[in-house]
Amino acid sequence: MLDAPQNPVAAPPVDRDEAQAIEQRLLANRRLSIDLSDPLTDEDQVVQASPDASPTKWHLGHTTWFYEAFVLGPHLPDYNVYDPAFAYCFNSYYESMGARHPRTARGLLTRPSAEAVRRCRSHVDAALARLCMQLPKMPNGREIATLLDLGINHEQQHQELLLTDILCLFASEPLRPAYQPARIDTVRSNRPLSAHRWVSFDGCDAYVGFSGEGFCYDHETPRHRVALTPYRLADRLVTNGDWLDFMAEGGYRNPLLWLADGWTTVTANGWSAPGYWEEHDGGWCQMTLRGLLPVDPHAPVSHVSYYEADAFARWAGGRLPTEQEWETAARDAPVAGNMLGTGALRPEPAQSRHLVDQLFGDVWEWTSSAFSPYPGYRLAPGPIGEYNGKFMVSQQVLRGASCVTPDGHSRATYRNFFYPHQRWQFTGLRLASDA
Amino acid sequence: MLDAPQNPVAAPPVDRDEAQAIEQRLLANRRLSIDLSDPLTDEDQVVQASPDASPTKWHLGHTTWFYEAFVLGPHLPDYNVYDPAFAYCFNSYYESMGARHPRTARGLLTRPSAEAVRRCRSHVDAALARLCMQLPKMPNGREIATLLDLGINHEQQHQELLLTDILCLFASEPLRPAYQPARIDTVRSNRPLSAHRWVSFDGCDAYVGFSGEGFCYDHETPRHRVALTPYRLADRLVTNGDWLDFMAEGGYRNPLLWLADGWTTVTANGWSAPGYWEEHDGGWCQMTLRGLLPVDPHAPVSHVSYYEADAFARWAGGRLPTEQEWETAARDAPVAGNMLGTGALRPEPAQSRHLVDQLFGDVWEWTSSAFSPYPGYRLAPGPIGEYNGKFMVSQQVLRGASCVTPDGHSRATYRNFFYPHQRWQFTGLRLASDA
Amino acid sequence: MLDAPQNPVAAPPVDRDEAQAIEQRLLANRRLSIDLSDPLTDEDQVVQASPDASPTKWHLGHTTWFYEAFVLGPHLPDYNVYDPAFAYCFNSYYESMGARHPRTARGLLTRPSAEAVRRCRSHVDAALARLCMQLPKMPNGREIATLLDLGINHEQQHQELLLTDILCLFASEPLRPAYQPARIDTVRSNRPLSAHRWVSFDGCDAYVGFSGEGFCYDHETPRHRVALTPYRLADRLVTNGDWLDFMAEGGYRNPLLWLADGWTTVTANGWSAPGYWEEHDGGWCQMTLRGLLPVDPHAPVSHVSYYEADAFARWAGGRLPTEQEWETAARDAPVAGNMLGTGALRPEPAQSRHLVDQLFGDVWEWTSSAFSPYPGYRLAPGPIGEYNGKFMVSQQVLRGASCVTPDGHSRATYRNFFYPHQRWQFTGLRLASDA
Amino acid sequence: MLDAPQNPVAAPPVDRDEAQAIEQRLLANRRLSIDLSDPLTDEDQVVQASPDASPTKWHLGHTTWFYEAFVLGPHLPDYNVYDPAFAYCFNSYYESMGARHPRTARGLLTRPSAEAVRRCRSHVDAALARLCMQLPKMPNGREIATLLDLGINHEQQHQELLLTDILCLFASEPLRPAYQPARIDTVRSNRPLSAHRWVSFDGCDAYVGFSGEGFCYDHETPRHRVALTPYRLADRLVTNGDWLDFMAEGGYRNPLLWLADGWTTVTANGWSAPGYWEEHDGGWCQMTLRGLLPVDPHAPVSHVSYYEADAFARWAGGRLPTEQEWETAARDAPVAGNMLGTGALRPEPAQSRHLVDQLFGDVWEWTSSAFSPYPGYRLAPGPIGEYNGKFMVSQQVLRGASCVTPDGHSRATYRNFFYPHQRWQFTGLRLASDA
Repeated sequence: MLDAPQNPVAAPPVDRDEAQAIEQRLLANRRLSIDLSDPLTDEDQVVQASPDASPTKWHLGHTTWFYEAFVLGPHLPDYNVYDPAFAYCFNSYYESMGARHPRTARGLLTRPSAEAVRRCRSHVDAALARLCMQLPKMPNGREIATLLDLGINHEQQHQELLLTDILCLFASEPLRPAYQPARIDTVRSNRPLSAHRWVSFDGCDAYVGFSGEGFCYDHETPRHRVALTPYRLADRLVTNGDWLDFMAEGGYRNPLLWLADGWTTVTANGWSAPGYWEEHDGGWCQMTLRGLLPVDPHAPVSHVSYYEADAFARWAGGRLPTEQEWETAARDAPVAGNMLGTGALRPEPAQSRHLVDQLFGDVWEWTSSAFSPYPGYRLAPGPIGEYNGKFMVSQQVLRGASCVTPDGHSRATYRNFFYPHQRWQFTGLRLASDA
Repeated sequence: MLDAPQNPVAAPPVDRDEAQAIEQRLLANRRLSIDLSDPLTDEDQVVQASPDASPTKWHLGHTTWFYEAFVLGPHLPDYNVYDPAFAYCFNSYYESMGARHPRTARGLLTRPSAEAVRRCRSHVDAALARLCMQLPKMPNGREIATLLDLGINHEQQHQELLLTDILCLFASEPLRPAYQPARIDTVRSNRPLSAHRWVSFDGCDAYVGFSGEGFCYDHETPRHRVALTPYRLADRLVTNGDWLDFMAEGGYRNPLLWLADGWTTVTANGWSAPGYWEEHDGGWCQMTLRGLLPVDPHAPVSHVSYYEADAFARWAGGRLPTEQEWETAARDAPVAGNMLGTGALRPEPAQSRHLVDQLFGDVWEWTSSAFSPYPGYRLAPGPIGEYNGKFMVSQQVLRGASCVTPDGHSRATYRNFFYPHQRWQFTGLRLASDA
Repeated sequence: MLDAPQNPVAAPPVDRDEAQAIEQRLLANRRLSIDLSDPLTDEDQVVQASPDASPTKWHLGHTTWFYEAFVLGPHLPDYNVYDPAFAYCFNSYYESMGARHPRTARGLLTRPSAEAVRRCRSHVDAALARLCMQLPKMPNGREIATLLDLGINHEQQHQELLLTDILCLFASEPLRPAYQPARIDTVRSNRPLSAHRWVSFDGCDAYVGFSGEGFCYDHETPRHRVALTPYRLADRLVTNGDWLDFMAEGGYRNPLLWLADGWTTVTANGWSAPGYWEEHDGGWCQMTLRGLLPVDPHAPVSHVSYYEADAFARWAGGRLPTEQEWETAARDAPVAGNMLGTGALRPEPAQSRHLVDQLFGDVWEWTSSAFSPYPGYRLAPGPIGEYNGKFMVSQQVLRGASCVTPDGHSRATYRNFFYPHQRWQFTGLRLASDA
Repeated sequence: MLDAPQNPVAAPPVDRDEAQAIEQRLLANRRLSIDLSDPLTDEDQVVQASPDASPTKWHLGHTTWFYEAFVLGPHLPDYNVYDPAFAYCFNSYYESMGARHPRTARGLLTRPSAEAVRRCRSHVDAALARLCMQLPKMPNGREIATLLDLGINHEQQHQELLLTDILCLFASEPLRPAYQPARIDTVRSNRPLSAHRWVSFDGCDAYVGFSGEGFCYDHETPRHRVALTPYRLADRLVTNGDWLDFMAEGGYRNPLLWLADGWTTVTANGWSAPGYWEEHDGGWCQMTLRGLLPVDPHAPVSHVSYYEADAFARWAGGRLPTEQEWETAARDAPVAGNMLGTGALRPEPAQSRHLVDQLFGDVWEWTSSAFSPYPGYRLAPGPIGEYNGKFMVSQQVLRGASCVTPDGHSRATYRNFFYPHQRWQFTGLRLASDA
């Protein structure tokens, strides 16, 4: 969540142009959620494919409740909540916001209907537009603008989840539906596979964490100094071709490559390939948002857990980068790549545009860093304080962005986090090593 | 399933009038399924509320696959299967019919869509009509007519399940939707509660099991002789009022009233009232197909497991009847009562129309008889042999019919069966005792 | 438990000779438990191998508590309980006797020590001897004699369990210890395998259930009439050789042979052979009380569940007998065979001593009858009423006796019962068919 | 495990005096294990109280197998393994050392007997003595001495586990046995409770990790520089009195104090107090190695999970220290306190001997640091590489030592680690805060 301003007195008012810009960004972002749900039937939107995933309708409802609960209710005079019964349905995990429907039962919510949720969204969008108009006159306009920024970033996270969760559902269905039909250009390239190259970084005292203008989440702060020893990063992500080598050399069958918890997980689940991979007629296919397609050896591997990423790195004679190493390497890189805006909807081969390529887009990159508070980190007061801080145990940090991350959402200091066994997100890895 | 004719040579042909009558019954029954799904949105129809329950759409698809697999495919020349991929989705448990989607994952099937399933139903209905027309000319017309009878009875079972499974779903939803709005006449009566009366039956050698014309399932045969000692049956079903007494006297807290497995189940699930009961403002309500309504003390108790029925009977100083006792008492009773045709959609108070009242309708009656084969029982050859026989262990027989059993489906020899812990069906009880 | 005398006034006093005879039987039975535990270390006696099994020490303690709770405490004047804390440890499932240690945690009881339990046994044995001496003078001497009979029969059941539970433990240990070393004569015979022969029984009205003098459990009563249709029984038990044929023909891989619950169980547990079978160097061995030995094709198959027995019978074109059929065939047979007294400690090949052979001894025989109350069955009043009645659901009746059943314990009317998935007992089967 | 020497050529030989000193330390440590098992019966030593804990006998066998597998087998010429079957029983988690008995089934090993394990220990001890004698003459004597050091440290860890696991067992037993009788001086003091005082530390560039002479585990290296911001540590551990305040203020019932995983754990397990606490007559007692004793409000709280420690710190307005903060504060402190040598066997009130007191002894202190590799960390080659590295995910670092840690085992750089939900160890906490 947002880094709380240290001195609220200094908050400047929001002027009319800025208010208009906020409104445009806000409503464009709201529209994106609906656009993303458009290829789906109402039936598709109600089902929960796994305890990790949520139904599309729930994402649409939850991101809307978020504005009602934290912005419109407290700040828009005379705001009428669309339906008070929705709060119970769409609160995710905010203990301070009252009772809520169990996470694992989100797929039972056939009511409210998808149509009712869409009507609720329109109701809230109209109210948000009214609120934006009033911002310049409101004494706490800056604070509200800040909350709206949080709302946008929050909804962007759910836009990514909406897509990863639909993939999870469609991969579980016998008919293997495609979210979007495959593009003509998804034909596999025949060019030969090549090894990654190492890019070296000197040891240094680096500063990590967010500072400056713009939005960031609370757990990206405070900016602080860390001591780094010399290290190297691969110039590209690990590819499916690399992974096929790992599999061919028995990577999934050799316990000595694995963390103890990882080996337990591999054994218990019978994993022998990344998530959504299926063997057909002796070749590997992968379920994607564009349907079941042959695995492209040039494209980055995706849907691997931390355990698998760690085992691969050990097998390859390297290791995963720390989040500090990654951030230092990415600090000055443009936040560009194969993200949601390209429309690819799946990881694509590296194009060697940068010395260290694919830092943003394609897949989130597992790091060896546990998700812990930065020195001096403080929980925001109030319910927003539940946004990130309470997840700071047993999870690993991922950096970068994926092929379904909304453009403008990520940055060099961005810290994503998942449990080490999870692999339903677009998660991959980049090799590192001591220099 | 159908009792196989012992001597196929003797099967008389189907004449034109009979063929027309079959077609009418068949298509009316097919239409009923669609009518029952009509108050539901497509979203309502896709979700699976519990491992015991199935989605509405699945019921609609499965009953249609049944005709394709067992009737149209084998017997209608040139029949085109609507979509070969549906067989995997809609086979329930027929091992001999190939691979199938896991039972517990039926709620993931957003595809095929509800609309596609309805189109498939129309396709099959048209083919069934064609088949009926041809019956008089087919050498195995009688055999096919028999299969169609099985298909109708099969679909009737799923019509009941469709309603019990929707109730299970709606009771799990925070908004507690009503399948049908409550009728005006659901106001609770104020007349005083009265005790049941005993009806006595002499000891005798009785014949139980089906014989004669018409349809029956294989497990209702062969008819055979049993020795009965004198017994008594209550003239009505146990009521909610009776059950409130049981609860008030600590019935759910006294282990000495319970079967060992029952006590384990009650403790593990924290049961303290029948299924779908909720306490609101000090009074008990029950979720019904007509929404959340106050418990009517005059109406039969419903949604109790065998364990609860058995404990209640012990508490009341009686016992549950055996299925032989029940059948002997019901042998000459009219198959009439509060079944689906009344439109009540929930159990209603006894009206003392018969000496032993409520034998059919309102709720299925748990008996103390385990579901076992009758002496001389034989599995039908072929896939139809999987219909009933493979469930003959660990389940208890229930007799009668419920408020959502299609009219014409049950009879005095009908054997329903569920596991002793299950209570999502309309299941209740009638007291018995030794005379 | 014991069938309560209908008219307590008629109970004749116990004379001195009878009292002495009771004492001898009682103390001999008590000594047998200690003798059975003798080959075991104290460590062997404390561990619980599975939730179904109990530690040897627990059996020794529980059977002793039983006398304290139901006989000595209520009936021996001035009896001093050995240690009041033991009741909590050694009550099995008597809800009416107060709180108790959880069944699944019996293996945590390192205290009281095995030595303390043996001391407690001596204390109780001495008190039992004193009680026997006083019986002739006690007005309720007959009632107490009856309770002592129950105590003996109860302890006999636990003597069998003690051995089956130790086998379960030793089969789980990597060193595969033998309870007794194998005898020289366990060499496999080379005589050819031969098929069973059928023995036919006419249809009749038979009486089943106990009547007459001597001890029986409550659930063997009341004696009642049943109608039997003509049937046949195999002259011997199903052998390991028969079972190897079943396995060779894919019996464990063909779902059409199995009850639905059975197939689920086989699949979930990966069963492909009877319990305790292990493949070594291409041949089958079985863990026995005499250690790991080659499977003897002539000996009866043992450690098969009801599901397996039922599937085998279907594969063999037969069925399991009902308990009424079995009892009628066994009514006049001598209660003799390979029981504990032979010292074999495992099933042995049939010796064709009787028309229907092996009715008693070797293995308990699964029947197709669910464990249900006989018509007119009544629970005994008081805590003894928890002995059998509360298990009358979801279990199947077994008849006969096994190679570890104490001599004198079983009879033609004896009803043993286990859940259909259980196979840690010496359980096998005999084929039946309609005549 | 041991930090591998960078330059094996430089390893100096072991002289006779050093060899003798090694032998003395080694055999004294071996004797300690037997001494610790002495108050236990053989029955006590065979049972496994929980999946986290291991039986005493298993600890005795495993630490002995460790020497056979890694020292005697490879390095003592003509060494005869005591019994080759033991390797399967007593290998813990070394995948490279072959198949092994499942961890959760360690409590089934009634064989080998405790007596056999003790004999095996004597056999190994004699061989170790012989090996020590030969060290001066062996070209790789230094390498072996290093392995022996590892063996001693390994066994010390198991000595601590032996005691914590026996406490776990005895706390599960209805008779609540005491490992040692309570000492007279365990009477609760009446002096008033007092608040902790803060000790401040400046921000600095500190070096953490082991360097210099003597033994350390691989994961304590390499020593490296970290940047610390100013911080404060409490001068003493959090006490039971502090914890009672937390409980009284609803600490266990307020989700806002907890990590999300923590709240799930608290709710699922129904925790409302530290491990082994029981309410008796309105007061709190705690099961200890000296039996069930009243909770001493002056003594440090023990048997709290990371989740509880974190929630307490949040409630108290502080936080947990990082492992770097802790190590920097402890760097120059004497490694002394209430460890195994005091014989107290439970945490004791602080005695204010040091500015920051109780750094070593009483309880292990949870830190906010996840257990991750230090920069430049390398797994040791060979099976010893499985010692620590494969646990570097999802666990939290603890620092210090406990009341059952063998003297001489811990140091300022020592990193202990457990999962955040675990609390069967002597685990507590010290408050920290930003300065």
